[in-house]
Amino acid sequence: MKLWQKSSYTVNEKVDKFTVGKDRELDILLAPYDVKGSMAHATMLAEVGLLTVEDKDTLLKGLQEIYEEIEKGDFVIEDGVEDVHSQVEMLLTQRYGDVGKRLHSGRSRNDQVLLDLKLYLRDAIKNLADNTKALFDTLIEKSEEFKGYLMPGYTHMQVAMPSSFGLWLGAYAESLVDDMVMLKAAYDITDRNPLGSAAGYGSSFPLNRTRTTELMDFQAMAVNVVYAQMGRGKTEYHVANAMASVAATVAKLSMDGCMYAGGNFGFIKFPNEFTTGSSIMPHKKNPDVLELTRAKCNQITSLPTQIMSILSNLPVGYHRDLQQIKEILLPAIEMLNDCLEMTKLMFEKMEPTKDLLEAPIYDYLFSVEEVNKLVLKGIPFREAYVIVGEGIEKGEYNPERSVNHTHEGSVGNLGNDIIKARMEETYSF
Amino acid sequence: MKLWQKSSYTVNEKVDKFTVGKDRELDILLAPYDVKGSMAHATMLAEVGLLTVEDKDTLLKGLQEIYEEIEKGDFVIEDGVEDVHSQVEMLLTQRYGDVGKRLHSGRSRNDQVLLDLKLYLRDAIKNLADNTKALFDTLIEKSEEFKGYLMPGYTHMQVAMPSSFGLWLGAYAESLVDDMVMLKAAYDITDRNPLGSAAGYGSSFPLNRTRTTELMDFQAMAVNVVYAQMGRGKTEYHVANAMASVAATVAKLSMDGCMYAGGNFGFIKFPNEFTTGSSIMPHKKNPDVLELTRAKCNQITSLPTQIMSILSNLPVGYHRDLQQIKEILLPAIEMLNDCLEMTKLMFEKMEPTKDLLEAPIYDYLFSVEEVNKLVLKGIPFREAYVIVGEGIEKGEYNPERSVNHTHEGSVGNLGNDIIKARMEETYSF
Amino acid sequence: MKLWQKSSYTVNEKVDKFTVGKDRELDILLAPYDVKGSMAHATMLAEVGLLTVEDKDTLLKGLQEIYEEIEKGDFVIEDGVEDVHSQVEMLLTQRYGDVGKRLHSGRSRNDQVLLDLKLYLRDAIKNLADNTKALFDTLIEKSEEFKGYLMPGYTHMQVAMPSSFGLWLGAYAESLVDDMVMLKAAYDITDRNPLGSAAGYGSSFPLNRTRTTELMDFQAMAVNVVYAQMGRGKTEYHVANAMASVAATVAKLSMDGCMYAGGNFGFIKFPNEFTTGSSIMPHKKNPDVLELTRAKCNQITSLPTQIMSILSNLPVGYHRDLQQIKEILLPAIEMLNDCLEMTKLMFEKMEPTKDLLEAPIYDYLFSVEEVNKLVLKGIPFREAYVIVGEGIEKGEYNPERSVNHTHEGSVGNLGNDIIKARMEETYSF
Amino acid sequence: MKLWQKSSYTVNEKVDKFTVGKDRELDILLAPYDVKGSMAHATMLAEVGLLTVEDKDTLLKGLQEIYEEIEKGDFVIEDGVEDVHSQVEMLLTQRYGDVGKRLHSGRSRNDQVLLDLKLYLRDAIKNLADNTKALFDTLIEKSEEFKGYLMPGYTHMQVAMPSSFGLWLGAYAESLVDDMVMLKAAYDITDRNPLGSAAGYGSSFPLNRTRTTELMDFQAMAVNVVYAQMGRGKTEYHVANAMASVAATVAKLSMDGCMYAGGNFGFIKFPNEFTTGSSIMPHKKNPDVLELTRAKCNQITSLPTQIMSILSNLPVGYHRDLQQIKEILLPAIEMLNDCLEMTKLMFEKMEPTKDLLEAPIYDYLFSVEEVNKLVLKGIPFREAYVIVGEGIEKGEYNPERSVNHTHEGSVGNLGNDIIKARMEETYSF
Repeated sequence: MKLWQKSSYTVNEKVDKFTVGKDRELDILLAPYDVKGSMAHATMLAEVGLLTVEDKDTLLKGLQEIYEEIEKGDFVIEDGVEDVHSQVEMLLTQRYGDVGKRLHSGRSRNDQVLLDLKLYLRDAIKNLADNTKALFDTLIEKSEEFKGYLMPGYTHMQVAMPSSFGLWLGAYAESLVDDMVMLKAAYDITDRNPLGSAAGYGSSFPLNRTRTTELMDFQAMAVNVVYAQMGRGKTEYHVANAMASVAATVAKLSMDGCMYAGGNFGFIKFPNEFTTGSSIMPHKKNPDVLELTRAKCNQITSLPTQIMSILSNLPVGYHRDLQQIKEILLPAIEMLNDCLEMTKLMFEKMEPTKDLLEAPIYDYLFSVEEVNKLVLKGIPFREAYVIVGEGIEKGEYNPERSVNHTHEGSVGNLGNDIIKARMEETYSF
Repeated sequence: MKLWQKSSYTVNEKVDKFTVGKDRELDILLAPYDVKGSMAHATMLAEVGLLTVEDKDTLLKGLQEIYEEIEKGDFVIEDGVEDVHSQVEMLLTQRYGDVGKRLHSGRSRNDQVLLDLKLYLRDAIKNLADNTKALFDTLIEKSEEFKGYLMPGYTHMQVAMPSSFGLWLGAYAESLVDDMVMLKAAYDITDRNPLGSAAGYGSSFPLNRTRTTELMDFQAMAVNVVYAQMGRGKTEYHVANAMASVAATVAKLSMDGCMYAGGNFGFIKFPNEFTTGSSIMPHKKNPDVLELTRAKCNQITSLPTQIMSILSNLPVGYHRDLQQIKEILLPAIEMLNDCLEMTKLMFEKMEPTKDLLEAPIYDYLFSVEEVNKLVLKGIPFREAYVIVGEGIEKGEYNPERSVNHTHEGSVGNLGNDIIKARMEETYSF
Repeated sequence: MKLWQKSSYTVNEKVDKFTVGKDRELDILLAPYDVKGSMAHATMLAEVGLLTVEDKDTLLKGLQEIYEEIEKGDFVIEDGVEDVHSQVEMLLTQRYGDVGKRLHSGRSRNDQVLLDLKLYLRDAIKNLADNTKALFDTLIEKSEEFKGYLMPGYTHMQVAMPSSFGLWLGAYAESLVDDMVMLKAAYDITDRNPLGSAAGYGSSFPLNRTRTTELMDFQAMAVNVVYAQMGRGKTEYHVANAMASVAATVAKLSMDGCMYAGGNFGFIKFPNEFTTGSSIMPHKKNPDVLELTRAKCNQITSLPTQIMSILSNLPVGYHRDLQQIKEILLPAIEMLNDCLEMTKLMFEKMEPTKDLLEAPIYDYLFSVEEVNKLVLKGIPFREAYVIVGEGIEKGEYNPERSVNHTHEGSVGNLGNDIIKARMEETYSF
Repeated sequence: MKLWQKSSYTVNEKVDKFTVGKDRELDILLAPYDVKGSMAHATMLAEVGLLTVEDKDTLLKGLQEIYEEIEKGDFVIEDGVEDVHSQVEMLLTQRYGDVGKRLHSGRSRNDQVLLDLKLYLRDAIKNLADNTKALFDTLIEKSEEFKGYLMPGYTHMQVAMPSSFGLWLGAYAESLVDDMVMLKAAYDITDRNPLGSAAGYGSSFPLNRTRTTELMDFQAMAVNVVYAQMGRGKTEYHVANAMASVAATVAKLSMDGCMYAGGNFGFIKFPNEFTTGSSIMPHKKNPDVLELTRAKCNQITSLPTQIMSILSNLPVGYHRDLQQIKEILLPAIEMLNDCLEMTKLMFEKMEPTKDLLEAPIYDYLFSVEEVNKLVLKGIPFREAYVIVGEGIEKGEYNPERSVNHTHEGSVGNLGNDIIKARMEETYSF
């Protein structure tokens, strides 16, 4: 069944298969949102006199039934039915007659699918934010738990200055705060009601868009109907950007984890149950989970490019191209949630190595401490630097292995409470 | 001169040239911020007892002199001097002696350049926001001016439903509001004080980072020192994301403009002075400005990918790679500002065509109006759709060319005031 | 079952699920190649004395059985079995005992999966080349069929000079010849035998890699074993590049098609059966197939970025990250094949419009013809250009609508035979 | 001066500045090619009777003079002159009168700039190939020189199996062979004569395109004139792809170098003169050159995305957007050449560490050797694997530190001669 079917011809079978694509399977994710949108639309149509109260009540009853079927997992998009919108309209008409055919007044599938996506993504962003927050909590907890464990800090991949597990893990927690800023921005861009934009040019019916905005609890309306339709693609792009931001943090943390679990560093270990082996080397215990979160998260950083490659240079107005973006974005959301969950699990299980800095390769970590001691004795910094540098070249450098950092955000004063407070403030949508 | 120069060897000349890269020319942009950062650092050092009051006063005097030289355009990074930080330290030492060598206590070039970038980008984002707002104002103004000019609306690049110049231009204005959300998010991520993170692992001196945060009017501190350094690259990435968002809107508007200026549409014209000609075809008046803003803005949409390609899979800690990002981002900021300015200019000069919808190719624009009339007579929407569709197939369709849209955001009720209010609210940083 | 399972612990269930990912479903595509690779390996092992002839014969028999089961669709990767390699080794051991455990001598799953991918991609590239060639043939055929149909040529999206359907379609055919150069290059990079590289560091067994190269009909060996493993990721990247090249051509052709099918151009039509309708506008016949091929092909142009985002900054040596690339590439290959097939179908059915150039908006198409006439009378080109340009400004331009191009590659002399010959030469792998 | 200037109006100054962009500075690179192209064009015009022999001789003389001025560095594009093409035409007309105005018959600036780019890129690709070959030679030389130095091989960033400096460096050499395949493919796509395509629709003059193809030593003509113009952008895209391929190899090698130069590996060192220091840590000797080559080369891997973001969804026909691609590609070519040169220099100076494998962290490198010994005693591989694995878990593993690999491409048999032969074969254009 096609909503636009005419009697005079039937669409070519290959064309039908190609254009429907994965819509049926992806639309199942959108189904509950589609029904909620139709409820709001029907309620408003009755209020502005485009539906009788009886018709509206019948539609709401029918939609509620369908909603419950969806929740129970009983809803399917039947073979030959193009999409979720058609399936819902068909069910209503089969069950309640002509009233089903009245529901589409003043709207188009274009704004229906856009509305469904907005409602779906609003929840999806919240869910991503929850998983991001959960990882944040683990990182802060472990930062505190291991704040007494020193580790080398690197610059240029060279041994540089003393750091700690507390600093390392806390840094990634703070990174997630900034990523949360992006999730919040994506949420605000998403949370705008497009309903009533119809095919992107509005309707001659006296629709009340403010009312549907309230009914669906949107913080605002996408006002201009042409812009409302432009929101398709743009919304997904911004969600993808925020996901890329989170993913970049997780990928970087995974990179550190892979490196630090390697024999040349030996900073961390994972229980055997969280590693995998080799088919040829009997000694291997590989951190495959971290490698796969790295790969998947790096892939997610290219999500905005994928979406932009579709959007780029499309002139104003709806294009069928936009359908393809669903196929890109929806599986990626699931992938990122998996990565957040697995990273949390791995860092809950991570075992840090004690007394790392005793090894001779870390001698030079303390060179700045030596410079600073001279500075405190009144020698200008730049001269103290030269003195210690020359000592090192002559082999006379003999560091005292202690760290006495006290300022905000340093080894001895992590500032995790400030970071936590900032996360609470940002994570509030 | 190199701050890290030792007496025992001289850097290979090719290595020197390659590693310095374009630092000298780009650093000129950072110079005023570098001096401001040093002022805050010196003030704080004195307050915590790491500089005498006399030394601090001398340094502030010297820095103020240099700042004024920068403002007058008299400041240069001399040949053989590695970067702006070295030049400033060298000038202070030349002019005021040893006190110049005391300034670097408790900091590193890493946090200096990061601080400079943060201060620079904070201003740059504001400047981009101003230019975005200026284009917004023009679009809203023209949307109001031309709201009575109807134009065809397209879906699938096919004639679809009636639209107007008011709707078209207003849509892009509203798009810029969402882009402003992204600029604001980038600003918030940028506006965090990294000073005191030194090489990314803090300092054993009792620095007062809260104080420098106040002195430089940052809304907050990048707390964790490891994270502060991670802010290099991540900050630029988020600025690039926001720029890509603005650029995508401008590129799409330019695409529309190019298409609508073409003979097959003929919707808009530009004065001759704003077009260019062909070396072979004497009749051509080409909208090259729009084509170049399209190209440049499309290029800017790939900015985040460029930056991410450098950041991807770098483990924690500073890497020299990050220097390269300056070379990518700084010229792109100038490019986007140019595009915003030129687009504003072009749309100020744009002349729309009147009475476009009279042409017979636009007959079908009004088919939904006919459907809606039947719906108002009580025929269910889906049946009315079939009736009009069959009329079209039989050649019996004869539309009345009038548009009576009244709902929010439609041809007859653009909602530009709501859009303007939303912009004012977002554009407040 | 895991090849690397030890008795002392069991992998965490979530870790197991996450690390296996979509391997089971994608590995089915690799199964026949995996078996072929094992046959070559077993044959070689026997020849160098690492397997008895009896064991080799048993293994070949067992592998042949499995191959036939794969061809019949009877092969499955059982629940709890990690991948295709494990499944094959397990079946051999179940059916023929210890001999199954001897097969893995001198190799690793790393080179097995790399080998499988190389063999799979070799066939996949050929298949893509066949579909590219098929579209090429259609375009050349239609270029010849419609060579007498003139159409406007555009520059800057402005009416420029006369063109023809023959030129337009022939141009895309020639574009596919260059894309075929890329497919050929990707094929040459793919067609190198990695077997024997084991985990990327070779084996202490006296493997005969030249022999397996012959047995599997590779044009060459990936010589250096470290490089052989680097081929993972790099091979897929180059295949993706070639696909992006083909996809860019198809996307551009689809863009033209969408635009030309629109009412403002009206250059082409498709039979109703090859278009789709609107849920709200009864008059619409949309070229959704072209829009979706455009979107899918544009998405494919971002494939190299996706792969590079995973590869970027991974140091030498195998990483589990590489597994993720299968999930990206394999479905994209199917997608591109679909697009090639659908584009061919659409252009077989495309109906061009006759006598397009009669419309007054195309008057200026002929301005260069007027200039050229003056040049033939002896007036320098630049002066003739000015004369005709002034005539146009004064409204005195009155073109003769005829086209007499004769040089190679022009409207009157398409050169399709040369293009066909070049395709035949390139398409030979 | 503008070739298309009309008397009736002057282009707006901002428009002029914006549209000219960086053309003047980039066009200097194209100048010699522009002159060569004009020579071929003039020669052909005379042969087909569109120029007198006298005029042709005058033009060739004038062009030869300009060519010599370019070679001497005396050629400038004057203020107010739009581009190189205009400057050349103007000089000819100033010096030799009307004959200068005859040169543009049968061509357009569009095919001139395209021709210039093709000629320029043909040389640029050869130059890139030369630099790639030079790095290859160094890597092979060092692979041979250090083939006796063992080093650990990693998988999953974990200690895996024995490798060597010979294998490591040879691997990157072989990678460059595959990159050379891409350079060759880009060369073949570039090396096609577009001249005669005019503005993309050919000319009514009887141009002899075969003749100009010969005169400029192109291996073939871009036949179809519409396709010839499509070559703009597509050519640059393919050159960028090949550059990305080379760059990815160099970036990966740099990543290895940075990691191996770090204290936790300590595999390689560079002379002091080839490292840089820290402003705060007196002990640092950082491999900044490798970090910058990594960053620059990673940036180059995003070059195709940048170009595609401009090309994507542009319909057929010239667009001014294409000008922007010059600004992206030309500086990137210089950047890649610099990176190739610096990488060669660094690897010439690299000093490997001896006897690396003696350290206890590398004990497990030899576990597969132990398995293989059991296999040679007749134990099936999978059982030998379990035996050695259990030995390791019980702490009974005690490896013999010797490596006896003999097969092609392994530690003991690098196969560099085969790799060199393959490079010679590929590097022949």
